[in-house]
Amino acid sequence: MSRTVDARTKALVEPVAREIRAATSDPKADAVAEREQASFDANELAVYMQGGQSVLDRNVKAIQMLKQFPWGDKSKRPFLTRTEEYVQGLEASVTIWKMANEGKITNEEAMAMRKQLNWPAGLELHLGMFIPSLLAHGTKEQQEAWLPPSLRLEMVGTYAQTELGHGTFVRGLETVAVFDSDSDEFVVHSPTLTSTKWWPGGLGKTATHVILMARLISRGKDHGVHSFVVQIRDMARHTPLPGVTVGDIGPKMGYNGVDNGFLRFDHLRIPRSALLARFARLERDGTYVPPPSANAKASYATMVFVRADIVKNAGDFLGRAVTIATRYTAVRRQTAPGPGARELQVLDYDNVQQVLLPLLARAYALSFMGRAMFGQYKAFDAARARGDFSALPELHALSSGLKAACTDATSDGIETARRTCGGHGFSQLSALPTLFTSYVQNATWEGDNNVMYLQAARFLVRALITAQRGGRLAPSALTRAARHLAVQAAAVLRAAAGGELVFEGEPWNGTNVDLIRLAKAHSALLLHRNFLEAVEAAAGELKPATTRALRTLCQLHGVTLLVDAAGDLLEAGYINSTQAVQLRAAKRELVRAVRPDAVALTDGFGYEDYLLSSALGRKDGDVYQALLEAAQGSPLNDTAEGPAWHTVLKAQLAHSKL
Amino acid sequence: MSRTVDARTKALVEPVAREIRAATSDPKADAVAEREQASFDANELAVYMQGGQSVLDRNVKAIQMLKQFPWGDKSKRPFLTRTEEYVQGLEASVTIWKMANEGKITNEEAMAMRKQLNWPAGLELHLGMFIPSLLAHGTKEQQEAWLPPSLRLEMVGTYAQTELGHGTFVRGLETVAVFDSDSDEFVVHSPTLTSTKWWPGGLGKTATHVILMARLISRGKDHGVHSFVVQIRDMARHTPLPGVTVGDIGPKMGYNGVDNGFLRFDHLRIPRSALLARFARLERDGTYVPPPSANAKASYATMVFVRADIVKNAGDFLGRAVTIATRYTAVRRQTAPGPGARELQVLDYDNVQQVLLPLLARAYALSFMGRAMFGQYKAFDAARARGDFSALPELHALSSGLKAACTDATSDGIETARRTCGGHGFSQLSALPTLFTSYVQNATWEGDNNVMYLQAARFLVRALITAQRGGRLAPSALTRAARHLAVQAAAVLRAAAGGELVFEGEPWNGTNVDLIRLAKAHSALLLHRNFLEAVEAAAGELKPATTRALRTLCQLHGVTLLVDAAGDLLEAGYINSTQAVQLRAAKRELVRAVRPDAVALTDGFGYEDYLLSSALGRKDGDVYQALLEAAQGSPLNDTAEGPAWHTVLKAQLAHSKL
Repeated sequence: MSRTVDARTKALVEPVAREIRAATSDPKADAVAEREQASFDANELAVYMQGGQSVLDRNVKAIQMLKQFPWGDKSKRPFLTRTEEYVQGLEASVTIWKMANEGKITNEEAMAMRKQLNWPAGLELHLGMFIPSLLAHGTKEQQEAWLPPSLRLEMVGTYAQTELGHGTFVRGLETVAVFDSDSDEFVVHSPTLTSTKWWPGGLGKTATHVILMARLISRGKDHGVHSFVVQIRDMARHTPLPGVTVGDIGPKMGYNGVDNGFLRFDHLRIPRSALLARFARLERDGTYVPPPSANAKASYATMVFVRADIVKNAGDFLGRAVTIATRYTAVRRQTAPGPGARELQVLDYDNVQQVLLPLLARAYALSFMGRAMFGQYKAFDAARARGDFSALPELHALSSGLKAACTDATSDGIETARRTCGGHGFSQLSALPTLFTSYVQNATWEGDNNVMYLQAARFLVRALITAQRGGRLAPSALTRAARHLAVQAAAVLRAAAGGELVFEGEPWNGTNVDLIRLAKAHSALLLHRNFLEAVEAAAGELKPATTRALRTLCQLHGVTLLVDAAGDLLEAGYINSTQAVQLRAAKRELVRAVRPDAVALTDGFGYEDYLLSSALGRKDGDVYQALLEAAQGSPLNDTAEGPAWHTVLKAQLAHSKL
Repeated sequence: MSRTVDARTKALVEPVAREIRAATSDPKADAVAEREQASFDANELAVYMQGGQSVLDRNVKAIQMLKQFPWGDKSKRPFLTRTEEYVQGLEASVTIWKMANEGKITNEEAMAMRKQLNWPAGLELHLGMFIPSLLAHGTKEQQEAWLPPSLRLEMVGTYAQTELGHGTFVRGLETVAVFDSDSDEFVVHSPTLTSTKWWPGGLGKTATHVILMARLISRGKDHGVHSFVVQIRDMARHTPLPGVTVGDIGPKMGYNGVDNGFLRFDHLRIPRSALLARFARLERDGTYVPPPSANAKASYATMVFVRADIVKNAGDFLGRAVTIATRYTAVRRQTAPGPGARELQVLDYDNVQQVLLPLLARAYALSFMGRAMFGQYKAFDAARARGDFSALPELHALSSGLKAACTDATSDGIETARRTCGGHGFSQLSALPTLFTSYVQNATWEGDNNVMYLQAARFLVRALITAQRGGRLAPSALTRAARHLAVQAAAVLRAAAGGELVFEGEPWNGTNVDLIRLAKAHSALLLHRNFLEAVEAAAGELKPATTRALRTLCQLHGVTLLVDAAGDLLEAGYINSTQAVQLRAAKRELVRAVRPDAVALTDGFGYEDYLLSSALGRKDGDVYQALLEAAQGSPLNDTAEGPAWHTVLKAQLAHSKL
């Protein structure tokens, strides 16, 4: 934009310009100052949180490799059309898959590349559901037939369970697989509009095969929902097979690199061998052999694993959002408190730091919770190998409540963090909108959160009855505050059912709100207790200053929970009004204590700039330069006159006398 | 998808299919049943809420006209690329503008078309800010020069205030207009990176002119920020003028039909007459003549008008989201409470109705509040004409708090409503994601909500001091519950300032959270009081049954506010624990009482299906058919094999032996 300007004009403006330049803030200097005031070694914490220096090194290497590919240039991502996002995302996934398959990179490196690239695409469910389902439910023969081509990516699978009419209520699925003993085949059919499969990722335009969840009907009897491997597309032309209607369901709030799809069957014949038969089987004559009862327990165990992963991801996504918002508000200055005074860092406003720093604490709490849940799952897995399933009911109930509590916390937390960034948080160049729109479906999938809370509540109310009868409780079950809510929820439930405790039907459904309240409080308790334990466990491995910083953060987490629950605590008589005021004062003091470490604590997550891909979240603080540079890539800027000039504006402005 | 299937196969499947079809739910029948159980005439309410039958008729006519244009086909909207959204949105705006200009439609009809189309585009600020600013701040000569071409759309303007570095703090703007008395011109210049104009709608690729907010410098003295009319693009080629760098800032979370832009100046010369000089002037010799002091009051009045509009829109947007979610959850059935039982309507789950129905009440409360604020503004405007500005401080403070409270309520409420819709609420075909992503910037623009709450809090704490000294209060100022929070906030503020009440600097900034808490409580109070008054005012015009339904809804609104504030009320000693429990029970009862009228109350807003453009929100309840049909338009479905087949998948799957 430089041009020739005469010296007189320059001389007129320069004194004014110089004064303004001298007074303007320097975000890079603010970023440096933030790190200088930290009380601990952020790099040590990053190594600990990421799981070792080798992980950090691997991330850096993964980013170097990604940058060699056109699709690895993240600066272009915000400007892609949905079709481009789908095609290029798939290209990226396939390329990384091949590199690993051909031994050019290790599996860990491939995982690191996928994580740093952060581009959900058409292979998500091939990797995350299709192959695991073959492993879990396929016979040896079935695995031999389908696993090798799946791993070589010579077929692409997905997992087709949810239908237009049914998600949560799996027993309500309407797709049928009717056994035809004459031909030794199943006839797969979609008998209603609502039986249309809807949502499976990769189904729309990518997958050649699905694991189909359909009701197995044999000899006129409905044996409930089972898994079948069904080819849906011609391998040579990728067009749908006769009897198959399949397509993309259109754009979602986010996650648009994935071609979530719909699927209908019109009397499609598949061989009997398509039924995944490791547990349940159908014999040649149509005799159904049900699965052993331990099978149900095994799938609950898988569910616990998936939820642990969701909780870990919740910490990761909230951590990213808080990192971006904290770093930006630390270098953003707005409003001078008095004439001639320097403008304040936005993070120094009471209302901003009292929102963001508790979220920072929450992100650490979630990360530690995710780790712990993996630990619990592994312990259970070891016990299961000995045939001991005794930990399952508790683990299942707690993982339900935590899945809901953690994904709620992250969904809401990302948006809260985004709003602390003012206008620039609304720009996609901040990465915050996409973080939110691509995350929020976590509150719905793998079990709607309200349903999850209710599963936890059921366990807790049962525990209460056990306790009231003097029985022994599971280790996590009831501490004082949660107990009060349990008593209250049980009372409401009893009243609704005329004195009985009924765990289904109208009494249960009609008191959901109190039950959910109970499960939320209990999940908060678990989360904080785990945070406390995790910090003390880390103390052995970290320098005292780092542990001190984490302890303060953990205290802030605890006090924030109490402030947020003050109404419940007052109602239960655990605190009085004076203490409620004191809690808020304590929270404010802890926020002030965390403040000097705020930016260093974001460094402690160990995120690379490439991962965050945010103009506002960059480590060096150069946020305004980053926004201006990133905006240049907008396709609207491809021509100087813009895309509406010739078609819309020119004719309209032609009459102008200006 | 029909194909030839042999009779034997059909005969095998048909008995099973028939049974499933018989058991599947019929959403259209559910929608009919919902209306049959309503206690009042929804059409009467719709007429009242929309402001008369003529408005409803005009909406229908507007939709008929819109449907004649390709861009009027809303079913295509979710699939547009951002460039298409920008170009077609602009085409739509220009077309409607021309129709009105050529007398083919009335101005009211044009407004109705814009509202039903709901496509924010490149002319938003031409209409909403450029022309109003000319009217408010231009001299007669300036208006004669620029208004006629603006109204004929022979120039397109926008309003360039916000910069990369400054939004809220207008005094911090850095763009300068330095007067050159030799040539009788201003030299407009962007002296820093942060002085880059950023965000103005329509600036990126549409506007030919801007109202530029820049510091007026004359004779070496800085006279603060003033408005200038500046041409930025060549009228014949639409390319930026020399000395101007301008472009689009890239995609946002939503609102992507609008080309928000950036703008930099390199010593651009503009005539002295570019300064909008109705109030402040610059004489030929560079002497600055400041505006009369009443001018500041006049612009506060404009602000109040804009905020009334924002509050009205808040009710409208929340109303749409709640309409979609309520209608959908009323026809969505999920989970049978027992074997053989019919699946429950999702709206009959306690946790769903206790969330959605209070939001329905809130949407009515916001709509009534918006109306009332317009009334207050008009009363003030009449007083102002008599030179009476006495109502302004209160009106300004209250409108600040209400702007924040209402936009927060709607931003959060849309997302809450969306989540009650489970997976399908994540699809853009539900319209809920777009409602949210296009609405949330309201919490930031026209005054960041936290700043707004603080303005209200300042007024309230001052009112408290007045009351404590025995003075007379403004009518709205303090009732009992808000007063307690005011006392508390004042105490925290005093403690922070060592005994003084200080309304700026560290004591004020350091206690923001308590002050915001106060303003939120007070705004809630105003909102509910107005709802009560509005229902009683409507009682004279509506049938008793309709008034009764509104009264119950209003009670639900009030009790929900109390339940949400239970912590504060317990802390202040206004309620005890037993009463807190009773409040929740009362809320549940009122939710049950509103439930039969839920769908009729959504009809009462008077929204057309075309406006909502939601597969889930359609009036007839045929949601699944609508989803399946709408999805067909996805560009990924343009070919059977999909857009990644030739470029990505074909080579990969070529080795398949399957």
